[in-house]
Order: sequence, then C-alpha cells, then structure tokens
Amino acid sequence: MEFSSFLTSLATSFVIFAVLMLLFTWLSRRRGNAVVYYPSRILRGHNPFEDRRRSRSPIAWISEAFNASEADIVAAAGVDAAVYLVFLSSVLGIFVLSGIILLPVLLPVAATDSGFKTAAESNSNATFNDLDKLAMGNVQAKSSRLWAFLAANYWVSIVTFYVLWKAYKHVSDLRATVKINSEWKPEDFAVLVRDIPFDSQGLGKEEQVDSYFKALHPNTFYKSMLVTHNKKAIKIWLELKGYKKKLARAEVVYADSKTTSKPEGTRPTNKTGFLGLLGKKVDTIDNCKEKIKELATKLGVEQKGSLRDKQRVAALVFFNDSKAATSASQTLHARMVDTWTVTEAPEPRQLIWENLTKNFYERQIRQYAVYGVVFLTIVFYMIPIAAISAITTLKNLRRYLSFLKVIVDKKVVSTILEAYLPQLALIIFLALLPSLLLFLSKEEGIPSQGHVIRAASGKYFYFIIFNVFLGVTIGGTLIASLKTIINQPKKIVNLLADSLPQNATFFLTYVALKFFVGYGLELSRVVPLIIFHLKKKYLCKTEDEVKEAWAPGDFSFATRVPNDMLIMTIVFCYSVISPLIIPFGVIYFGLGWLIARNQALNVIVPSHETYGRMWPHMHSRILAALIIFQVLMFGYLGLKKFVYAFLMVPIIIVSFIFVYACNKRFYKSFYYTPLEVANKDSKDIPNLESLYVAYVHPSLIPEKPDDVDHFEDVQTNVSAKESV
Amino acid sequence: MEFSSFLTSLATSFVIFAVLMLLFTWLSRRRGNAVVYYPSRILRGHNPFEDRRRSRSPIAWISEAFNASEADIVAAAGVDAAVYLVFLSSVLGIFVLSGIILLPVLLPVAATDSGFKTAAESNSNATFNDLDKLAMGNVQAKSSRLWAFLAANYWVSIVTFYVLWKAYKHVSDLRATVKINSEWKPEDFAVLVRDIPFDSQGLGKEEQVDSYFKALHPNTFYKSMLVTHNKKAIKIWLELKGYKKKLARAEVVYADSKTTSKPEGTRPTNKTGFLGLLGKKVDTIDNCKEKIKELATKLGVEQKGSLRDKQRVAALVFFNDSKAATSASQTLHARMVDTWTVTEAPEPRQLIWENLTKNFYERQIRQYAVYGVVFLTIVFYMIPIAAISAITTLKNLRRYLSFLKVIVDKKVVSTILEAYLPQLALIIFLALLPSLLLFLSKEEGIPSQGHVIRAASGKYFYFIIFNVFLGVTIGGTLIASLKTIINQPKKIVNLLADSLPQNATFFLTYVALKFFVGYGLELSRVVPLIIFHLKKKYLCKTEDEVKEAWAPGDFSFATRVPNDMLIMTIVFCYSVISPLIIPFGVIYFGLGWLIARNQALNVIVPSHETYGRMWPHMHSRILAALIIFQVLMFGYLGLKKFVYAFLMVPIIIVSFIFVYACNKRFYKSFYYTPLEVANKDSKDIPNLESLYVAYVHPSLIPEKPDDVDHFEDVQTNVSAKESV
Repeated sequence: MEFSSFLTSLATSFVIFAVLMLLFTWLSRRRGNAVVYYPSRILRGHNPFEDRRRSRSPIAWISEAFNASEADIVAAAGVDAAVYLVFLSSVLGIFVLSGIILLPVLLPVAATDSGFKTAAESNSNATFNDLDKLAMGNVQAKSSRLWAFLAANYWVSIVTFYVLWKAYKHVSDLRATVKINSEWKPEDFAVLVRDIPFDSQGLGKEEQVDSYFKALHPNTFYKSMLVTHNKKAIKIWLELKGYKKKLARAEVVYADSKTTSKPEGTRPTNKTGFLGLLGKKVDTIDNCKEKIKELATKLGVEQKGSLRDKQRVAALVFFNDSKAATSASQTLHARMVDTWTVTEAPEPRQLIWENLTKNFYERQIRQYAVYGVVFLTIVFYMIPIAAISAITTLKNLRRYLSFLKVIVDKKVVSTILEAYLPQLALIIFLALLPSLLLFLSKEEGIPSQGHVIRAASGKYFYFIIFNVFLGVTIGGTLIASLKTIINQPKKIVNLLADSLPQNATFFLTYVALKFFVGYGLELSRVVPLIIFHLKKKYLCKTEDEVKEAWAPGDFSFATRVPNDMLIMTIVFCYSVISPLIIPFGVIYFGLGWLIARNQALNVIVPSHETYGRMWPHMHSRILAALIIFQVLMFGYLGLKKFVYAFLMVPIIIVSFIFVYACNKRFYKSFYYTPLEVANKDSKDIPNLESLYVAYVHPSLIPEKPDDVDHFEDVQTNVSAKESV
Repeated sequence: MEFSSFLTSLATSFVIFAVLMLLFTWLSRRRGNAVVYYPSRILRGHNPFEDRRRSRSPIAWISEAFNASEADIVAAAGVDAAVYLVFLSSVLGIFVLSGIILLPVLLPVAATDSGFKTAAESNSNATFNDLDKLAMGNVQAKSSRLWAFLAANYWVSIVTFYVLWKAYKHVSDLRATVKINSEWKPEDFAVLVRDIPFDSQGLGKEEQVDSYFKALHPNTFYKSMLVTHNKKAIKIWLELKGYKKKLARAEVVYADSKTTSKPEGTRPTNKTGFLGLLGKKVDTIDNCKEKIKELATKLGVEQKGSLRDKQRVAALVFFNDSKAATSASQTLHARMVDTWTVTEAPEPRQLIWENLTKNFYERQIRQYAVYGVVFLTIVFYMIPIAAISAITTLKNLRRYLSFLKVIVDKKVVSTILEAYLPQLALIIFLALLPSLLLFLSKEEGIPSQGHVIRAASGKYFYFIIFNVFLGVTIGGTLIASLKTIINQPKKIVNLLADSLPQNATFFLTYVALKFFVGYGLELSRVVPLIIFHLKKKYLCKTEDEVKEAWAPGDFSFATRVPNDMLIMTIVFCYSVISPLIIPFGVIYFGLGWLIARNQALNVIVPSHETYGRMWPHMHSRILAALIIFQVLMFGYLGLKKFVYAFLMVPIIIVSFIFVYACNKRFYKSFYYTPLEVANKDSKDIPNLESLYVAYVHPSLIPEKPDDVDHFEDVQTNVSAKESV
C-alpha cells in the first residue's frame, strides 16, 4: 500500500469520526433522545437533563467520563463493566509505557539505516515507502543496531508483566471489596446441586435431597428447591404474556380510534389463523381476554403439576448462613463425582434452567463434542464459505434461478453482484459466528449465562487470532509455500515473521478504521437511535412497547473483548517491528476506555453480574498475545541473521513462568468465593424466604395477586403428600 | 543365553527357594523366634502358639494367609496394606485372564511358523534356541499370523481396563467404609493451617488465628495449636531419652554383676568424652541420674519458652465437629493463596513438623528444585557411577593408596577386586537411592510422611523404568546407534522394539530369580532373625532394648511398589512377544500376594495410615506400563512389516481416555475426604481435649507425671498474658 493511499484512508476515517461526534453532540442534547443516550440513568431514576451538576458543554461527557470514580462505574454498570475498563486501561498502560521508550529510540535507529536502499539498489523490483523506512525492515541484516530491537522486546515484556500483576491484584481486591460490601444476594445463601442419584429407598426427590443435606449440614440447612420439568408451563406462560401484550395494544388502538368524529371508536379485529392472515375474524379485545382467562387456568393446573410430579435430578439448596453455603459449595459431598455435584449457585437471572438437569456424563461428552465442533469451525471455516461462494456465482444463479435472468443480465447489476456475492457469504457467516459460538457454549451444559459468555468469548478469540490475524498475515504466502511448510514445520515461524513487516501498513489502516468508525458509531448510537424512532413512530402503541424499543442492553463481552484482543495482538506484534503502530494502539485503547466509561455511566444496563470472573480470561489472553509477539520476534531476529536472537528464549520462558505464577496466586479466588469474602457479619441476615422465592422461575409464580401464597401451599402439599 | 543355562539358573533359584521355605517352616515353629515371625500378633496381644484355631501343619500359614478376609487384613495392618494386596491381586488377575487366552492361542501360532529357520538358512551366524521358537520372533514378516498378536494386544488391554475399573471402585469403597466405621481420630477434627500472614494489628499469632477462625466458623471452632519453633526442646528431649536408656541399661548391668561370689557387684563406669573413649571416668548410674534431673529442668524451661515466644506461621485448628473440619479443609479461606492455606490435617504420627512452617513460595521453589535434581539423577545417574568406577580401578588404587600395594599385588585378590570394584559403586549407589529419594521428597516441604512415601515411590518408579528396564533393553544398542537416533528420534521406538525379543530370556531369568530368592528371603526372615539373635545375645540388656531389636517395621512401600511395577512392566511388555513370561508373572504376583498377606497378618506393624491414598498412584502406573507396552507393540508390529499395525493406534487412544475417565471419576474422593464419609452421626463426639493433646509433640509433654496439666496451664498463661 502506498503512503498516499494510507493517508487518504486515514483522513476518510477521521472525517467519518468527526461527523459522528458532531451528530452525537447535537442529538444527545435533544430531550426526545434521552432514552437512547441516557437509558441507564433514566432506569436508575435520574433525569439526565435536570441534574444540576451536569454541564451542558458539548465536551462535558468527556470530563464526566474521565472523572467518574471506579465506585461510580460499579454502581452504574456493575463490577464486570469496571473490570472491562481495567482491561482497557491496562492495555493502554502497557502501550503508553512501551511507546515512551520505543518511539524515541527505535525510530531514529531504523530511519538512519539503509536496508531498503541497499535492497532497492540490488533489485530494481523492490519497492518501499517512507513509512517502511521507520520500521525494523530498514535495518540491515546482522547489524548491531538489532540490539536495540532485542532490548525493546524485553522492555515491552517487562512493562506487560508489571502492569498485569498490578491489574490482577487490583481486580482481585475490587471483586472482594464489592462482594463484601454488597447487600445480601439470594446466591449467597444457595448452592446448586446436580446429579442427584436415583434413590433406592423410593423416597421422593425432594425428601431425598432434604434428608441428605440435613444429615450433612444439620445446623445450617434451610430448605431445598427441586428443579422441575416445566417446559410446558413456560410455554403457556409465554403465550399468556403474548396475549396480555396484545390486549394492552388493542386497548390503546381502540382508545385512539375514539375520535370526536367517531366517539364509539372501532374495535380492533384480527384473524386467528396463520400469522393473522387466515382463519376466523374475531374481536381482538374480547378474544384476548378470553384466551388470558383460559391460559391462566391452564397455567395454574400446570404449575401444581410441575411441582408435584416433575422434579428432576437437580436442585437449589438454601442455607441459613452464607459462610455455610460457600463452604458447602467447595466441599466434595459424595464419594463418586457423578453424584451430588455441589457448586456455587449462579444469580437467579443468570440460571440456564434447561442445563441444570443435564447429568455428569452428558456434560462431559457435550463439552468435548463442542470443543471438536469449534476446532473444526476455526480450522476449516474457509471451506463452507468457499463452497457457498462457488455456488452463488452469477453463472450458477442464472442457471438455477432462471427468473433472475432479466435482472442479472443487466450490466450494472451483474458488476455489482459479481463483486459482492462472494464477500456476502463471508459477511453473513462472520455475523452469525458470535451467535453460533454462544449457542455452542450453551450446549456444553454450563449452568450460568456469565459462564456461557466467557466460554463463547474464548472461542471467538481463538477464531479471530487464527483466521483474521494469522490468516491475513500469512494469507497467500502460506498456500504458495505449503509444500515447504509440510516438510519443515519449524519454518512456519520464519514464514510468519517474514510476512509480518509487509502487512504493517495494512494493519495500521485497519486499526485506524476500527477506532474512528467503530467508536464513532458506538458513541453516537446512530443505529439504535434510528431504530428507536422508527419503532416509536410506526410500531409501538403502549408504554411498555416504547420502553422495550429503547432497552439499552449490556456490553456484549462475548464479541467485544475478543475484538479488542485482536487489535491488542496486532499492536503487540508490530510494536517493535514498526513502532509507529503504538500511537494508534494508544488512541484505540484510550478512546475505547473513554467511550466505554461513558457507555457504562449512561447507557449500559447489565443483565447479570459475575464480579469480574472475566478477568482471568482477559489476563491470560493478553499474555498469550505477548507470547505470540515474542515468538514472532524471535523468528524475525533470526531472519535478520542476528546471532544473538537466541537471547529471546529467556524472556519467552519467563513469560510462561509469569502465566503460571499469576494463575497459581490469583485464580483460585476467582474460581471459588473465599470464605473471608462470604463473611459479612456486620449485616443482618435477610428474610430467607424472600431469597428462596427469588429463584422461583417466573412461569411458576401464580398469576392472581390474591394467590400469592399459593406457591408455598403447593410446596407444603407436596411434602405432606409424599411423607404419607 | 542358551536354553540350558536358563534352566540351570531357574533350577538354582528354585533350590534356594526350597531351602529357605524349609528354614521358615522349621524356624517359625520355635518359640524363641515368635517375636521375629509373629511380631504383629504379639503386639496386638495374641500369643501365636496358644491360639487354638491355628493349625501347626507346616503349610498352615498358606491356608491362613489365603483364607483371611480383607477385614482381617485391615484390622491387622491397616487399609494401606489391604490396598497393596488389591494392587497385587489386580495385576495377578490381569495376567491370569491374559494368559488364559494368550498361551493356548499364541504359542501354537508362533511355534508352527518358521521365521528363525528361514533366518538361519539365509544367515549362518543367526542363532536361536527352543524358547525363541515359542515367541513372536519366529513369525515371518508380513505373515497374516500377526493378526493373532494384534488381537492379543486388544485382549490384554481390555482385561486391564476391566480389572482396574473394578479395583478402583473396590478400593474407593474400602477407603470410605473403613473411614466411616472407624473410631474418631484426632485428624477428623483438625485442619492444618499454613502461611499465616503477618498481622498488622500486632496481635499475637495465636490470638490472630483464633480470631480469624472464630469469625469464619463461629459455631464450630474449638481451639488452635500454633506450631512452635522447638528444635532446642527436641534436642534436649532426645538427649534426656538417651540418658534414661543408658540408666536403665547400667542398672541391669549392675544387677547382673551381683553374683553370689561378689554380692556387692561392680558399679558400671564410663568416660564422658568423645564416644566414651576419652575424658573423665564417672559412675554411669550416678552420672545419668544427675544428667536426667538437669535436662528435665532445662526441658521444662524450654517447653514454656517454646510455647510462649516461638510461635510460627503454621497451626493446627480444631473443630467441635468433623463435618465442619472436613468442609473447612476444602474451602478457600483467603483471597490470596499465599495466606491462610487450609488443608486436611495428617495423622499426628505422620506430621513432619519442620515442613509445616515452610511458606508458600518456599514450597513451590523447593518442589521444582527437587524435580530438577531428580530428573538429572534419573537421566545422568550412569555418569557418577562411571566416574567412580574409573577412579577406583586397581591401577589408580595402587598409585594413590600405595600402602595397599602388598595386598593388591597378590593374584587372587586382584582378580576379585578387578571383577567387583565397578559393580560395587553401582550397588552402593542403588542401595542409597531410596533414602536419597525419600530425603529429596521430604525436602519438597510435604507435611506428612505418607505423602513423602508416595512422592518417593513415584520418583523411584521413573528411575527404575528408565534405567533398569530401558537401560537393559536398549543398553548397548543405544550407544552404538546414537547417531541414528539423534537424526531420527521416532526410530527410538523401533530400536526398542527391535531389541526387546533379544532380551526375553534374560528377563525370564530375572523375574524367576526375583521371586524365588526375594520371596524366600522375605518369608523366612533369615536376615532379621540373625540380627535379632545377635543383638539379643551380645547387645541388649533391658527389656526395651530387646523389644527394639525385633521391632518389625512396615511394608516399605517407597521401594517395594516400584520394584513390583518393574516386574509388571516387564511382563506386560513381553506378554505378547513371548507369552511364556506370563506364567512367571502369575507366579510372581500370586506368591507375592500370598506372602504379603502372611506378612500383613503376622509381621507388619504399620507406622501410619493413609486409607489407601497410594492407590491412584498404583493405578496410573499400571496404565503407564500398559501404554508403554502398547507403543512398543505398535513399533514391533511395524518392524514385522505388518500393514495393519496402525490398528494399535485406537487402543492407545482408548487407554488415554481410560486414564482420564478413571481420574475424573475416582480421584477426587482420594484427594479430599467426601462430606458423606466424614459424617459419623451414630458415634458420640469424643473428648475434644484428648484429640487436641494427641497432636502435642512428645518433646513438649511435661516430664513429671504430677505435671500433667502443665501443658494446659502454659496455654492458658499464654492466652492470658497476650490478651492483657
């Protein structure tokens, strides 16, 4: 890529960014848009425009985001958001500290050498541009200048170790502090019990669980809740919810139709058949009311039935003391691991009910099956895309879908289609990938949403590193030299190292595009804004529907974190080869940090809380990126025929030791809740019954308000009946 | 080796065995030898000769050993001995089941082929004997007869899986049953706490531990015992014990000297200087009494001092409930793993006090340092031996120790020395190895004796497999073809497989020698018998000294198990190549099982109890041997140019899956005590104070019997003082 085209691309991106920033400043100050730009504040009961402390200057959001304390972030968006910000600021710190030394040292060292000039003289085909001159490629082979680049690797590594160690300690403290100081949560008193064995004495499942835990925890056992097979109840409950929504909507429509000219209004009607297009025409309001009554009765029957007869092999067990629950969750209960598996209970809102009842062996098998599928997806994902591309060529389209001939034969259309059809397959596949990975991770049998997201994020990271980074870098070269590689596998590092510098400019552009356009879109929220306004105008009738239309959602860590990781890996790998990339990395993570803080304070509403369980994954992947970088540099220094390249080996070994040491020292307290942290003696024990009810699935909560004790009744009935 | 010399060696071994058996039958019936042949029974209060149920027939011990139930074994020698017997019987079972199919199938298949005949015809140098004809070597390359050998591998593998799965289940049940049904033990109520952090509030260590555990276990914490720095007290205590022994001995000597001819007797005297050879001559009885008095006072002072001022960073914490202790030992207490490490408490008699206070980082570093040393020892152990051999040649001896010239120059002496000097170094080194490995394992910072033995046994296993088995098998061939190996490392399997059949007869002889002579010696206890009688006659004066002379000791698992493993590995590896080895394996493990049962019932007195924690190690090493066997067979079938040799790959993969599955399913309940097992509700809680006192180091127990509450007093004093 020429230097000029690089500048053009950079300038274009920047213009887009500037436009989006202006849009944000203008749009976010309009009252009607408040629900799009400040949904988190609104849901927490603040009015963003009446808050006296908030300045109305266009750059007020920057100082606000910058000055917010970590406690503010935790209060607004939870520990997970705060930990994500620690991740961004750690990477930012690493790049700033690296850049301070690398830029003033390596740029002059590289620029004053003449590697490219020599290459150009001896080979007239060699091309190089002004940017390349500032990179390691311009240093001649065997030059003693390479010492500076070797030392730079050490500097980057040591800076990374220092920042990550401090960050891990900080996150660990944050996690513990927030947990200790937070209010009592239902999950503090509960454990999740899976793989309840078949009882030979013919006890009911509930009795079996109760007697088992009463014997082992005589003073602290409170009660148990069996996971029931309530698919049918959920189905009815969802249907019921749908009709209630429809009823509310129909009533609003009916009320709106009562104009002065037609005071009696028009009662809305609909057809009962397929998609409301076929079947009998009925009065919507009457029909809905009737249906609701009918379903409520059905649900009531189903609820009683579920609780009584459909108890499955999993349960939530409640204790009257959080220390007892924590201790129990870490204690091996049964001799055989395939029975009575006891683990910490996830938050009620995170529970994936259908996974709870999967048994030990099923979970193991599913896990490995999913790993296999993911491995194949990562390695061979190019194949289905190529296949789809081949099928969806213009020629094939014409042959099989002959009615398209008229359109396809037009010159303009065919040009466009020919250019975009293959990419389309790639784009669709890439867009579907996160959902696919989330689905696969869920299929492993993981019991909580937070864990599924971590698992999916890990898979996405491998995919992105393997396909985007390695794919682009070695790309064509690889296929050309496949034969060489198969014969001498160790050459792969050399090959990679060789193709790295050639792609430096490409990645500079990629990073710049990513932060200018990506962040611009994120901050300005143009897409959610348009969708919201369209929905509000044409679709939404009731207040609930409007609220649903602006529901902000949370940081989608499953895709966001791996994408940041990709940029981080790219910047790491080029930091020494072409130090000019460091400022881009700094801007990416600096801007990212600022915007993420703004989103955390104003927009994001977290759907669950894992108290930073994501951190160990982020930490180890930052180190994975560092090690990839070190190995590549080892190869590249070797290619430059630098005899001291072997001096890279010690730092690679130190990196592995650092991984091990951090894991050993910190990880356990992320995996288990330490007893110290579960001990909130200063706080009163809450009403245990309310904690218990928090875990009842909404479909099992009785419909009628006067029936509020019904659930309890059912429970008592069941026990009474079974003990007869 | 010729067939005739094999028979000669076999016959010689058998004669030795027969003689030793006769000796055993004769010697064990003499009343004076009872303490050597039945020490375990005597210590348990039985009189082996007055027990009516015991037959006096010479082979009575066989039926007795055979008929004893597992419960008898557990009662006599503990779970560890019972688990060792399960190990022997499992391997026996594997070989019997393998032999039933392999012998009648493979021997005819091999014998009716003519591989060696063809080889002999084409190459007059090739030699073969009748035994070789019965082995796989006699099958011609590419022959379809090799299918039988391939199938035999599958049969042996499947038999192993079946037997091991049942055995693991059995041991797991045994462990749990015995633990549940046993009396309360001090360790059931205690946990071991290490890495007590520095307290910034300036509390005393004991107060710090108490307040920490009281806060986290408010209802179940009983009290704590700080590990103290009592090296000095131990030293004084040992000295005191020595003088007491000496006094008792001197009094007996004095009483014996009062003969009728000299009624006043001779008061024994000794010199106080170096080894009793130099210094002032004193009256032994008076001197000892004086010293004992002096040391007892010193010890009393030291005891108080230890408890008060020398509290270290480790403690034993006691609970009033065993379930609470079990749960606490599995629960993460502190956020940082380098503080408040809580684990199960070992038995008091197993505790290695000096290791308790080693901190987290020290333990980590020591562990890896020891692994490094062991690795070097295993790989390079030949080098020091070669070096010593080189130095201790006759020529060098003559040169440096010229005073030996006169002896060395004699013909007979020089011949013998020349033959044995190099072996001597090897023998001494091999004899020292178990102690070295025990020492190294202890240096890792492991807190219990049982764990040290497991660790040493593991190290010894690697040593034995690497050096004895692989060493002998590839031995010379390896050095000759070192160049080939370095260039093509995968050829090492082929090389090994190639040299295996050549060594079949050697190993047949080795196994035979091992069981005939080894077991003969073990059963007849000739060596301990002679030592006991010599000691009794010439050295022992007091009753205690006699008792010490026949103290039987326990199974030394650290060396015994790896030696059995070596035989097992040899039999596994040759089972298909030369099935004739199977009967030898069957006899080795059958006889071993019988004799070990006899020893367990009559001889062994276990020094501690780990409830079969050794089993997972045995299990995984049996599987390691199986996998070595499978890989070698894969190589050997390849050498035979059998095109379906790749069919060995699936069974190797299945073996690894089996290892993983067993580990996953059973190991956790060996590593942790399941809460189910800690729950002995039917039994009354014992006196907690007595459990606590069981952990007091003997050197800290007050000397005078009227001072029995002294320890308690000291404790109270300390607490009182510190809380002021």
